[in-house]
Amino acid sequence: MPSIETILSPAFFHLYEEGLEQKNVVVIDILRATTTICVAFANGAKEILPVAKPEEAASMQQMGWIAAAERQGETVDGFDLGNSPQDYTKERVGGQKIALTTTNGTRALQMSSAAKHVWVGSFLNSDVLLFCAGWKDKFNLEDTVFAGAVACLLAETFSITDDATLAAMDLYQQAEADLPGYLQKASHVNRFKSLHIESDLDACLKTNTLNVLPEFKNGTIQNCHNA
Amino acid sequence: MPSIETILSPAFFHLYEEGLEQKNVVVIDILRATTTICVAFANGAKEILPVAKPEEAASMQQMGWIAAAERQGETVDGFDLGNSPQDYTKERVGGQKIALTTTNGTRALQMSSAAKHVWVGSFLNSDVLLFCAGWKDKFNLEDTVFAGAVACLLAETFSITDDATLAAMDLYQQAEADLPGYLQKASHVNRFKSLHIESDLDACLKTNTLNVLPEFKNGTIQNCHNA
Repeated sequence: MPSIETILSPAFFHLYEEGLEQKNVVVIDILRATTTICVAFANGAKEILPVAKPEEAASMQQMGWIAAAERQGETVDGFDLGNSPQDYTKERVGGQKIALTTTNGTRALQMSSAAKHVWVGSFLNSDVLLFCAGWKDKFNLEDTVFAGAVACLLAETFSITDDATLAAMDLYQQAEADLPGYLQKASHVNRFKSLHIESDLDACLKTNTLNVLPEFKNGTIQNCHNA
Repeated sequence: MPSIETILSPAFFHLYEEGLEQKNVVVIDILRATTTICVAFANGAKEILPVAKPEEAASMQQMGWIAAAERQGETVDGFDLGNSPQDYTKERVGGQKIALTTTNGTRALQMSSAAKHVWVGSFLNSDVLLFCAGWKDKFNLEDTVFAGAVACLLAETFSITDDATLAAMDLYQQAEADLPGYLQKASHVNRFKSLHIESDLDACLKTNTLNVLPEFKNGTIQNCHNA
């Protein structure tokens, strides 16, 4: 039986590099990068290029790409878009290519690039690493709870023996009945409140509303779902 | 109000080094180093010197110290003691000094040495870092659940805003009613079973049975409790 393990933050990533090329990685950055990526594809985006620095995103503008950059939770000055899923509307991103850099999520994607497959939301039948992007290398609740939700869904067909996944599943089971309520205490939710972007929270916590399957491959993200 | 934060594994330690000299660190290695240290003091040990390598422990034998070394869960060949609290009896350790090296716990102690105080089980009224020794830098359930128990006890007099501590508290609340039952799924418990040292589990999970307060200071551990 293939296994599921959870990388609770990028600070743990080096412990999972061995054999990475045989594994599927699911990058998790619920608030907000991986949510935003799924929304962008659902609204017709053609491709998303995750880049490390705002300058790299800006340089793609000349080739007709949308440049999106977020740091410390806010849109970087002078960029077309930030990291709010609410801004990635059909009108704005339909048919477009987007170069995107965020504080945590795009970095986790790039760290995973040696893996067999890197998904932004789903995966195949081989060993799986659920990779929580965290907040500046620290643990966070919302990504861990999502990892737990995925693991709970797949517990029957995967072997789950690592403590991080077991803890994530227990936290999800506590949170499940009222996900937004549970996450009120999360530090990133309080960061959203101080930035006055609480409405992004609801946008990021709507479960099972999108029908997309974004894969990170050869340095860029495309929607692999055949609708 | 002073704060409590939780370092879920040594892989996160570098994120907490700033301002460490103003903080109290509680090193947590429930299975088994910090439990063993508390048991040793309860049974009359005079001092415990945490060292990095078995050779360093062995070199103390010539000066009349007990040399204790554990690696991969087992006593290193040729040493007086390993890391089982059951072996640290009054007869064996009463009045003795012990040089101890273990896979995870003694390393976490040494990493913390710049802190204001480093406790092996309790602390004073300033910012607190609960430092889980983990297993070879990975997250583990038992140390996290203990961190949660400590945080729950102190929640009224400390500010708790970091996600790692909030998650640890939620896990403790799930585990509280039946701690040994809850930890049956922990990977380290299964490691104990394969090493046939399950009886150490019960020895490590007896709550509130010892009356000791070990402090790590100037490179060594002493019992600061005035009984």
